[in-house]
Amino acid sequence: MNQKAIGIFDSGVGGLTVLRQIKRELPDESVVYFGDTARVPYGSKSAKTIERYCIENAIFLLEKNIKMLVVACNTASAYGINKLRRLFNIPVVGVIHPGAKAAVAVTKNKRIAVLATRATVASEVYPKAIHSIDPSIEVISQACPLLVPMIEERMGNHPAAALMIEEYLQRVKEKACDTILLGCTHYPLLHDEIKKALHPSVFIVDSATTCSKEVKEVLLELGLENRKGSSAETRYFVSDDPEKFRETGERFLNTPITEVLLEGIH
Amino acid sequence: MNQKAIGIFDSGVGGLTVLRQIKRELPDESVVYFGDTARVPYGSKSAKTIERYCIENAIFLLEKNIKMLVVACNTASAYGINKLRRLFNIPVVGVIHPGAKAAVAVTKNKRIAVLATRATVASEVYPKAIHSIDPSIEVISQACPLLVPMIEERMGNHPAAALMIEEYLQRVKEKACDTILLGCTHYPLLHDEIKKALHPSVFIVDSATTCSKEVKEVLLELGLENRKGSSAETRYFVSDDPEKFRETGERFLNTPITEVLLEGIH
Repeated sequence: MNQKAIGIFDSGVGGLTVLRQIKRELPDESVVYFGDTARVPYGSKSAKTIERYCIENAIFLLEKNIKMLVVACNTASAYGINKLRRLFNIPVVGVIHPGAKAAVAVTKNKRIAVLATRATVASEVYPKAIHSIDPSIEVISQACPLLVPMIEERMGNHPAAALMIEEYLQRVKEKACDTILLGCTHYPLLHDEIKKALHPSVFIVDSATTCSKEVKEVLLELGLENRKGSSAETRYFVSDDPEKFRETGERFLNTPITEVLLEGIH
Repeated sequence: MNQKAIGIFDSGVGGLTVLRQIKRELPDESVVYFGDTARVPYGSKSAKTIERYCIENAIFLLEKNIKMLVVACNTASAYGINKLRRLFNIPVVGVIHPGAKAAVAVTKNKRIAVLATRATVASEVYPKAIHSIDPSIEVISQACPLLVPMIEERMGNHPAAALMIEEYLQRVKEKACDTILLGCTHYPLLHDEIKKALHPSVFIVDSATTCSKEVKEVLLELGLENRKGSSAETRYFVSDDPEKFRETGERFLNTPITEVLLEGIH
């Protein structure tokens, strides 16, 4: 029983798909969200730089007095999570392992496709995480670098986005994967467009949903959950352009955001 | 007569289209290029953050002992150039005014379209610069936020890029602009694709080329040019991922880059 907040960070707005699921799973928990919008995107940066950004973001949230840290960004989870676990003495939950576990649980033909940013693909964290559970599974990794800008530009249902999705799914279809893992927290916003481009039997696992389930499990396991829900609040911080974050964020959350504060490390 | 280098910065690789033109116009000059790849892109960030990045980049280059500063980024020119001119005592050349001047010189029907990033469009620097020369010109500003990622992902000749260009040029065509100003240093790499989507009579002004002409004029005017060409060298610095910069940069320059050093401010 603990009334402190859950801290969540992402390079920008993408992690709000994780926040949305956490609020659904755990409506009584307070949440502090940090979007590192001054340095977004992480997906095209080097491992060392991403790791440094993760540490700085974690310190920012720790100073907001959190009980758990959620890395709601696949790229940051890929490069930063081990370091964060070594450095800080609160539980750290990322998006990689919960997603990998769920994908392994649903695949029947043992061919999983992972759609992600270039950096996440290059890190090979998803193949590693999947193989640590079942080494016989074939993992097809596909970098989809144009999907994030298309989502942020509200071009998700433009014919150009459909063409790009078709392009990115070509190899996935050739390999007849029966499970697609959305390995970027932006991609749930293209769920329907991706679904449309695939055979109806293909299962889509979304790492935002699986991460929020893991958050709940860990909270309960460690007895850190809050049972006095009346005081639950959600606070938003960004390192740049709070107004733009508010606008885009409301689209991600499908609910109004009243206040976004400009703070954090640059 | 001055053998110091010309300093050029951009948020990433885009400014290399300016560097390429400067090397053509001024083959005897040494150049130091800084690509702020740890914080790229600037186009989606706030005015205040962009201004701060400009100052830090300028200081980095000043410490490399330069005789002139070229802001080879439209977004940075839009938000940072006045501040840079006030702060530092070397000539500062941006990409906005040279481009605006050239576009005004070629338009016949006095309707100029400016294609640029969101931040450059929001800054209204191009309309202001054009109107300061001829207030009777109509300026149609079009933000093209997906073109930079498409260029960087080598998708410039993919059908999805053609669809996006079509989308972005729709209003430009409706307004029957006879001149298009490429207000982003990446866009010269889509010159042919943009040309194809327009009536053959439309004139395309590219701010990389016009900026390099301005650099030459200013150097000659101030007597800062180098006449001992034998020692001319080009050095590259980035704030993240030198190898990726080298690869993409060679495509931009159409010539090999031997060394890229990781330095600069984060």
